[in-house]
Parts: sequence; structure tokens; C-alpha cells
Amino acid sequence: MQEEKQFVNAIADIEKNFPQWFTDVVIKTKLVDYGPVKGTMVMRPYGYAIWERIQQHMNKMFVATGHQNAYFPLFIPASFLNKEKEHVEGFAPEVAVVTMAGGEKLAEPLIVRPTSETVIGEMYAKWIQSYRDLPILINQWANVVRWEKTTRPFLRTSEFLWQEGHTAHATEEEAMQETLQMLGIYKKFLEEYLAIPVFTGQKTEKEKFAGAVATFGVEAMMKDGKSLQSATSHYFGQNFAKAFDIQFLDADGKHKHVYTSSWGSSTRMIGALIMTHGDQRGLILPPKVAPIQVIIVPIMQKKQGVLEAVANLKSKLHNAGIRVEADQTENTPGWKFNEWEMKGVPLRIELGPRDIAQNKVILFRRDKLEKIELSLDSVEEKVKELLENIQCALYESALMRRQNRIVVANTEKELKDAVDNGNFVQAGWCGDRSCEEQIKSNSAASARVILDETNKNVVFSTPPHPIEANTVCVCCGKKKKHVVLFAKAY
Amino acid sequence: MQEEKQFVNAIADIEKNFPQWFTDVVIKTKLVDYGPVKGTMVMRPYGYAIWERIQQHMNKMFVATGHQNAYFPLFIPASFLNKEKEHVEGFAPEVAVVTMAGGEKLAEPLIVRPTSETVIGEMYAKWIQSYRDLPILINQWANVVRWEKTTRPFLRTSEFLWQEGHTAHATEEEAMQETLQMLGIYKKFLEEYLAIPVFTGQKTEKEKFAGAVATFGVEAMMKDGKSLQSATSHYFGQNFAKAFDIQFLDADGKHKHVYTSSWGSSTRMIGALIMTHGDQRGLILPPKVAPIQVIIVPIMQKKQGVLEAVANLKSKLHNAGIRVEADQTENTPGWKFNEWEMKGVPLRIELGPRDIAQNKVILFRRDKLEKIELSLDSVEEKVKELLENIQCALYESALMRRQNRIVVANTEKELKDAVDNGNFVQAGWCGDRSCEEQIKSNSAASARVILDETNKNVVFSTPPHPIEANTVCVCCGKKKKHVVLFAKAY
Repeated sequence: MQEEKQFVNAIADIEKNFPQWFTDVVIKTKLVDYGPVKGTMVMRPYGYAIWERIQQHMNKMFVATGHQNAYFPLFIPASFLNKEKEHVEGFAPEVAVVTMAGGEKLAEPLIVRPTSETVIGEMYAKWIQSYRDLPILINQWANVVRWEKTTRPFLRTSEFLWQEGHTAHATEEEAMQETLQMLGIYKKFLEEYLAIPVFTGQKTEKEKFAGAVATFGVEAMMKDGKSLQSATSHYFGQNFAKAFDIQFLDADGKHKHVYTSSWGSSTRMIGALIMTHGDQRGLILPPKVAPIQVIIVPIMQKKQGVLEAVANLKSKLHNAGIRVEADQTENTPGWKFNEWEMKGVPLRIELGPRDIAQNKVILFRRDKLEKIELSLDSVEEKVKELLENIQCALYESALMRRQNRIVVANTEKELKDAVDNGNFVQAGWCGDRSCEEQIKSNSAASARVILDETNKNVVFSTPPHPIEANTVCVCCGKKKKHVVLFAKAY
Repeated sequence: MQEEKQFVNAIADIEKNFPQWFTDVVIKTKLVDYGPVKGTMVMRPYGYAIWERIQQHMNKMFVATGHQNAYFPLFIPASFLNKEKEHVEGFAPEVAVVTMAGGEKLAEPLIVRPTSETVIGEMYAKWIQSYRDLPILINQWANVVRWEKTTRPFLRTSEFLWQEGHTAHATEEEAMQETLQMLGIYKKFLEEYLAIPVFTGQKTEKEKFAGAVATFGVEAMMKDGKSLQSATSHYFGQNFAKAFDIQFLDADGKHKHVYTSSWGSSTRMIGALIMTHGDQRGLILPPKVAPIQVIIVPIMQKKQGVLEAVANLKSKLHNAGIRVEADQTENTPGWKFNEWEMKGVPLRIELGPRDIAQNKVILFRRDKLEKIELSLDSVEEKVKELLENIQCALYESALMRRQNRIVVANTEKELKDAVDNGNFVQAGWCGDRSCEEQIKSNSAASARVILDETNKNVVFSTPPHPIEANTVCVCCGKKKKHVVLFAKAY
């Protein structure tokens, strides 16, 4: 029992020090480690395995909607960044620059891609000639670099892994449709696979991507009440098409600039996963992305027949398509319970001589901390059912928590108090940037997304509270233009 | 018919100008394009799709042998490279260096990884404490950068995609076993999936990896008779363990340095694929890695019922697990035939009104340029059989060609004449570096692998000709120490 206590104590208090809890969890569960260069992280096998599941599932959704993967170069000529005015302003301060290569100083410095709009724009200009070449629907899985002073594994690192989709279309409508389709795919993925309920909607001018006409975001509430931007989808209009001269000969015989979109999501989603579901004991992983779904812990494993029964059970579950491991190390069962609870494995199965004699097993649900007794017969069907159950329960629980923490505010004080107490805020906004900036500087809350009052598109989130609650701007008191979701954010 | 001729003519003559043929094929089939920075390439969807198949199959083989994937940082402190003497000498001339980041000059320049032994060594030193932590069996899929003056897509580019495995073991035997196991996996992968017969064996001191105790290579004969090193596996002994102080407490209570290995293969394999199987019409892709295995070309597609029959056939084949597409563009059938032959799709199916009336289809095998008539009933079974057939036939054909082009040489002149005529050479070698260097400077041929005369290990290739044929060093005429495979190489 003392060992169990040690485990719990090793992780900082989730209520009192959430940031430290997060760091303890990601390091102690061996998801990541710090790299030797400041700002970098190593994704260890357990962490990378989550990313692999994310990639697999998400990639299927991309392919099903007609996208193809490709790979563009890491290095971008420094001059490319300058071609789109807002883009360079947004990214120039955080790029890493290669000035030497092959033992010589380079004539033109190279930028390590912070994102690939520019280099892909250059290639599209070359590849696109006619309307027959459109649309181009390409996605890339890659590493990108954005220099950071601080390091927060998964949340803020100089290099991170992501996917970035880049599409080109003949018309505005089609490009916008694509932008919103991808927003919907992100929402679906986060909710169905990561069990994270999200708000989706348009970003304000202040919060949009550097170079975009419009940015749409996916925002999730973390357990500390802060919001984590989990994916974004951008509509560029003809901004990049004009900057890189991406033209096509249309069916009407005229040369036109294309309309482009881009959309991205990254290993940040693993951060979202941890901060949505984790608890004092450590990680809680949704079954669909858990590297190990079931851990079998033998009880009195030296007794005759135990390890044999464990092996049989393991192969039974494995053959049913369940990701299962058995922990046959020399550690005590209590130590193993803690270890695997900390690592967030959704289900534990305990199997000892008494269970074998009674043809039963004891299951332990990581999410509800509940024990369940099951017959060994057809255990694989029950386990599958339970895993589906856990997946749903995690989503439901996160949704309930979020619903209880969205507050309507009509004054700046109400807004500040609400976010300071770990809430999201629904508030009216006049649409002026100065009000948005004042709110940010007074309360540290930013506009996360504009809520959709008029059901413009099914993919946008509507205000959780009746819109009658917000008639004026929370900052200046003038008539509101939008209902906005405000929150402190990662 | 004129269009067909245009197609053929667009690709340089494979016999007269093999390098230009290669470049024409990779660009015209849209496998790749040149990136804006000299030395870089873009992998377009058709090329990247081959890489994805390679990754999938190879990754399964890695996982089946107990390896886990992880991800290490792109940037390595410049000082790390200096820790292993031979390693820095090998890589320093070709690294790209980041000197500026976040708008400031960096205190210590950062190297963009040319390979990750050093940064992984640093992490392993931290992660490994006890013999219980061993072995560590990690693989990484990543991009690496080695600065190049010339650009040859897939063969020589400043940035390329690869996998690099890095393992640490308690004993020399285990580390060597791992090194050779991975050599065997590469051989199996190249032969079974890429249909490329290979020679495997130890490299000479001159040709080994910078920092290794021993390097083992996988060499394939291209259609021009040159050899392409398609994968390598390195045994490091304790070189990196000592450089990075990777120690463990062994069961006997003593602190010891670990033994490490690394092994890698890259997008170069796609180059090998093209130059092993391609012909004057373009690519020939082995079915196991072909992005499209079957292309259906409708004949008289505007006639009633044709596109419906095409759709039915496509879904029948798709449901049987075959990667199938139908080309319903407005191009003529002749144009389509050429296009898909150039793109190397293993099987073409022609389907028109007459075929539909007769309940049959015409198949065309890309490898043998043969037409086959088949009943539409149970066509999916026949197609599957044919795809397996093509996979084998490609391997057999490459093997036959190679067998006819391995020559025994006992003098430098014989060796030079043989490699100049596009052959591999089996020759005796005294073991002296000076002879190896002289051979290289006189004939441009290098020692590809040392052949295994004594069946040391089943994974090594034995000499194709009787070893009695080589008793002396092909260079100095002294008694031979080894029988070596010499060839010009990419």
C-alpha cells in the first residue's frame, strides 16, 4: 500500500498545480522527454504510439474525402516568406535560419519551415495550368519549427509534428466548402476518437492565421478551464494565389487566380487529450487511441497455471483485435496497478489462481475506478463492449464538465471573474478590435471563436446559452455584433 | 497513334542515356519534382504513395521483431557531432547549420540531423540505468539533411526521408545479432516487396559508416549495371556508448557500457525500384507497392452501359482488396494506355461494348506487354492471381538479368572492362586499402560487399561463381584474403 501512495505523491496535485501535474504526467508516463536543445522534445515510444493512432484514424478521414499525401521540402528560401505581407509578419520572428551548409556560407539563407504555404504555393503555380488540374487536394505529415523561449511538451516546443493540408480550387465557394469540411473533420475526429467535446467557429481578425482571409478553429476545454486550440482551418481567398501567381486557364478561356485553403493539427492534440481526461493518478486514454487497451496483471504469477492462463487470455483478446499486454515483471501487483493506472490503460484485468478456479476475471475500469467481475467465457466480447463504453463515457464526462463551466457575462468584471474561476464565457462583442484587446489585457481571456447565432453552417457551434442573454458588448456596452466564446487559452 | 509515339519519344533512350531516362521517368510520371532550394525534391502524391506502401510493409516487419517507433529532435547541438571522432569526420562536411533562431544569433550553432546516432546516444545515456532497461529497440521515421552539390531525385538530394533504427544491448553478441537480423529484414523486404534481388555482406573498412565497427550493406544491380546501396546495418560495438557514456548496472553488480547498432533505409529504395524494373515506356511497379494495381480503361465510354459496367467492375475489384482506378477522362484510349503504362500500373483492363456483350475483358500486363482475355465472371480472383504472378515475374526477370552480368576478374583490366560493360565483378582482394583505392581510381568501381565464402551467416550472400576462380588479389596479385563484389555505384 505504501508503494501506491508513493505513486500518487509523485505527481503534483491536479487541483493545486495543474501545470506541474501535466509535466509530471507526461514525463513519468514516458510519453516524452526533453531533448538536448532547449525547446525540443523527444517523443518516446509510448507517446509516439498515440500519435501513430491519431495519424492512422485521421489519415483515413482525409483519404475518404479525396485527399492525397505528399512531401515538400523542409527548407524554404528566405525570400518566399516575404511574398505574403501578413504571413511574413506573423512568422518571421519565430523562424530558425540555416546560414551554413556543406561547409560554406549560403548565398541566400534558408528558413526551416514553420508551415508550408509558401513552398507549396510555389509548386502549385508550376503544377496548375488548366481548370482540369483543379482541385488539388494535398496533405502532408511533417515536422515544423517555430522557435520558442519556453518548453511545454506537446503544447509549446520549437519543433513539432503535424499534418498540414493545402488545397487549390477554381472557385471561392469550393475553397470555402473545403475549409469548412476540414473543420468538420477535425471536430468529428476530436469528439469521436479523442473523446474531446469541442467548440468550432470563425476566429476574429486578431486571432486569425497570418495571411488568411478567414480562420476557423476547434477549441477544447481543459480541466483547468483554459481553452486549447486543437486544430485550425484557413480560407485564403486569392492571397497566396496572387503572392505566388497560381493561375489557371478556366473553361471560359480566361486566366484566373485559384482560391486556396490550408488546415492543420498537431501533436498538441495529445496535450489536449491528457488535460481533458487525466486525473490525480495520471493519464486516462480513450480506447480508440490507447497504445495498450487492456493490461493483464497476473496475481500470484509463480503459482502453477497462472502465466499459462494469462497467455491464453492474452491471445484470446489479441485475436479479437484488442491491443493487449501482460505485465509479467517481478514487481508486485500493487505496483503494477499503479503503473498502468498512471499510464492510462483503459482496462486492467487481474487474473490469479482463485479466478482461474472460478473461471472468472476481475476487470478494473481506469475511467470510473470501478471493479467488475466477469466470466472467462466470451470475455473478449465483454471487453470490446466495455472499451466502447469507456470511449463514450469519457466523452460524456468531458461534455458534462464543460457544460457546467460556461458562464454568460455582460460586464468585464463578470467575464474576468468567470475565467479566473476556470470557466468559458459566452459574451456579446461589438466587433471592435480595441474592445477585444482591452478584454485580453484586463482578464487574459481571448476570443476563442465567434459563436454561430443563425445556424449559418452545421459545423459551427451555436451559443450554449440563449442568445438573448447577450445584447451588448461585454467591454464597451454598445450593441453587440457577435456572440463570442472567451477563455484563457494555451 | 501519333500520341503514342509522342509518349515514347518524350522519355530519353534507356540504352543510350540511362541517367536522362531516369530523370525523364521520375518527372513525367509525377513521382517527384524539384524543390525551389537547390538539392531538394518534392515527393508528389504518386511518388509519396509508393513511400507510404514501403513504410507500411517495412514497419510491420520492424514491429514483428519487437521494435517500437519514437521521434527525436531535428536539431542537434554542434558539439554532439564531435563526440565520436570518425563520425564527425564523416558528417561534418555535409551538414546544414542553423545559426539564427527567433530573431537572434544562437550561442551554439545547431546541426540539422544528418543521422541521429548522437542525439539518440545522449537520450539512451539518460534512459538506461540497469540491465532491466535493455535491450532498447527503437526506430524512427524522419527526414534528414546531407548537403549535396548535385541533385538526383531519390538518389542524391539534400533532404530525404528515411527510417533509422537505433538499438542498445547488454552484450556484443546480442548487438551483432540485431545488426544482422535487420540486414536480413532489408534483404527480405527488397526481394519480396520491391522484387529487387540483392547482395548482402560486410563492407570494407573504407566503405563502412563513419563511427561503426562494422557496416553491412544491401546492394542491388540497376539496369545500367551500376550498384545501388539500398540499406545498411551498422554494428557500433561500444563506440557510441563510450562517446555518450551509455552505461548500465549489470546483474553482476558491475557498471558496463552498452553495445549499440543502427540501421537505415530511405526513399533511395524508390530509385532502386525504378532502375531495376523500368523500361522504355516508363515505370514498372511491383504490385505490392504500386499505388494503383489495376487501371480500367473504358472503350467507347459514351456508349450506353459502358461506364456502368466499368463502375461495377471497379467496385468488384475494390471489394476484393485490389487497388483499382478507372480512367474516365476525355482522353483517347490510346493516350490512356500510354499514360498508365508510363506510370507503371501492373495491370490494365480494357472494357468496351463488345467486351460487355461477350461477358469478357481484355487485360494487359505491363511487365510482359501481353494481352490476356478473361471472362468477367470471377475476374477478381484471376486479377489477384495475375498480380501475384507479376510480382514474382519481376523478381525472376531482375534476377536473371543480374546472373548474366556478374563476371569473374583476376586482373585490373578484366575488372575495368567488366564494369565498363555494365557488369558486377567477383574478384579476389588482398585486404589492403591501397589496392581497394587503386581499383577505385583506375576503374571507378568500389568494393560493394565482401562475399561470404564460408557460410558464416545465412543472411550473407555467397560468391555467385566458384571461389576457386579467385585465388589472388585482382590488384596486386598477392594471395587474396577475401572474395569481393566490385561495381560502379550510385
